[in-house]
This record gives sequence, structure tokens and C-alpha cells, in this order.
Amino acid sequence: MLHNDRGFTLWLTGLPGAGKSTLAKAARDDLMGPGGRIEILDGDEVRTKLGQGLGFSKKDRDTSVRRIGFVARLLSCNGVVVIVAAISPYRDVRDEVRRDHEGTFVEVFVDCPLQELIRRDTKGLYAKALRGEIPHFTGVSDPYESPLSPDIHIRSDVETVAESRAKIVQWLKRHGFV
Amino acid sequence: MLHNDRGFTLWLTGLPGAGKSTLAKAARDDLMGPGGRIEILDGDEVRTKLGQGLGFSKKDRDTSVRRIGFVARLLSCNGVVVIVAAISPYRDVRDEVRRDHEGTFVEVFVDCPLQELIRRDTKGLYAKALRGEIPHFTGVSDPYESPLSPDIHIRSDVETVAESRAKIVQWLKRHGFV
Repeated sequence: MLHNDRGFTLWLTGLPGAGKSTLAKAARDDLMGPGGRIEILDGDEVRTKLGQGLGFSKKDRDTSVRRIGFVARLLSCNGVVVIVAAISPYRDVRDEVRRDHEGTFVEVFVDCPLQELIRRDTKGLYAKALRGEIPHFTGVSDPYESPLSPDIHIRSDVETVAESRAKIVQWLKRHGFV
Repeated sequence: MLHNDRGFTLWLTGLPGAGKSTLAKAARDDLMGPGGRIEILDGDEVRTKLGQGLGFSKKDRDTSVRRIGFVARLLSCNGVVVIVAAISPYRDVRDEVRRDHEGTFVEVFVDCPLQELIRRDTKGLYAKALRGEIPHFTGVSDPYESPLSPDIHIRSDVETVAESRAKIVQWLKRHGFV
């Protein structure tokens, strides 16, 4: 357990099924301090609370990501460690959220090749999307813009969750976040 | 300056112009601890961040209030003192937000008679609303449901801001919030 007095946002971006939520939960266990000031904002969950009426156009996805960014910023500037797990497919809005965070934003690219995600397809969503049954499915019928220089690059196709979370904690320690 | 380790939400509800935002800022100065974990969520400001596309029907106003409630809850359960200043005209949704807070919600009714608000009308909005130029204006052309038993009842027509903020701090001390 690590103690944090200083809030920051660990932002996990990646294709659907790449392991963002799983890694978010694992990282929470590492980063939970005695004060318990840590919060996971999961894109799918937050959408039900803050995104009623929003669809999957670029404009609506951008609005959704900006809202998550706004809440993450509110929390982190009040000393909370925030872990965001959200596809957040567009580079420009991720960068905008990073700028708003003024140095307390850590971008984590949860990277898994599309072919591997289609092979695993634990929820059967890629098969549906490939059959055209899910419109605007990121990676299949909607774009995903990979980070050009993420702070942390996770390779969830070849790393175990334990290895990935260790990588995150090491990076945060090395850069003075924890 | 008072120190708070325990977060809670101080929810200021009342008609437009009743003094919610002014009182929120004054109360912040009283409640700001050394850690600085305090946040004002102003209804008008939050609407620009989380409410694009929402109008002023009951359904949309309820959605807006629920979103503020969701964010306030996220912050307060992470040790932040949250001061909300929002008209939040409907009783049922305020009560719903209260329930979600599980004992960390303090309802403050910022009460000023409509006739006095129309007389003051510092922003000229009541005059416009009375001329029919602003549709859905709470108190004139849209309902406001007063709290039936607010935790704190502020009478901004007869109290000074200093008296009102003292009333709030005394209540919070007496009930162990600070």
C-alpha cells in the first residue's frame, strides 16, 4: 500500500477489451493509501451517470471524454488519485484533458493488437461488430487514435496483469507521483 | 479555519438571486481546512461542463441535478467538503441525491420571498421573466418546491451574509461535521 497526499489522474486509454478496467482495479489495490482517497472512473459506468443523450459520433464521444476529464480534474486537484478506464479514442481531446490537468495527468496506453482482441473476444462484441450488428464500434467501424508518446505503454497481449501493474507503480514512483 | 477529514455535501437550494453563490463563497472561507479539500459546484458553471444539450424541462433539470449530485457524492466520499449552489427546484430529486449521500448531505434552504427578489432583481432577470422574455424561469414561469424540513434554513431577506454563514458553521459543528 502506498500513501498519496497528492492527487493525479492515471488515464487508461485503449481499444475495447484491451484490459483497461481489469488493470484499473489491479492498480487501485497498489495505489490505495490509508486515507482511501482513490476513485476509478469507468467510461461505461460514467456514461450512464453523465452521458444520457450522448451517442457515438466524434462530437458526442468528445463531450463524454471531456466530462470524465472534468470530474477527474475536480477529484485529483482535491488530493484524490483517479484511475480512468475509457476508450477515449481521439488524440486531440485526450491531449486537451491532459493540458487541463496541469502536470497531474498520466497517460497509459493499454495496447493490444486488434487481431488478438478479435481472437479473444471475451464478450463476443467484436464478432457482432464485424457482422455489422454494432455501429460505431471502436477499432472496427470507428477510429482509434493511439497515443503518440504515452507516459506508460502497456502491452496487454504479452504482459500479465501483474507485470503491467508493476510497470505502472514503478513509473509513478520514478516520477514522484507516489 | 476549520479542518475536515470527513467529506460532506452542503447543498444550497433556493430561487434565482436568493444568494446561494454568495453564501457558498462565504462559507468556503469558513470551512477551508489546511489541506484545502473543498470545492464549490455552482449550478450555472457545472451546466456548461456536464449539461450541454440539457434544457429546462423537469426531466432535464432533474438530470442536471442528478449529475451535480453524482459529482458531489464522488468528491465527498473522498474526503472533500463540497458546497453546491444550485436552484434544484424539485423536492423529489433533491431527496434522491440526499439518499445517495448516505448521511453526508446537508440541505440548506436559502429562502427569500419572491416579492423581495423581484424588488432587488440585481441582474434584471426577474423583470425579463415577468415580461415573458425568459421562458422556464424558476419562481415566475417554472415551479420551485421549497424544502419541507431543510437541515438549515437561511432567511436571506433578513439575515446578513455574515449571520447566515455563522448559522451554517454552528449547525455543522453541533452535528459533528466539522
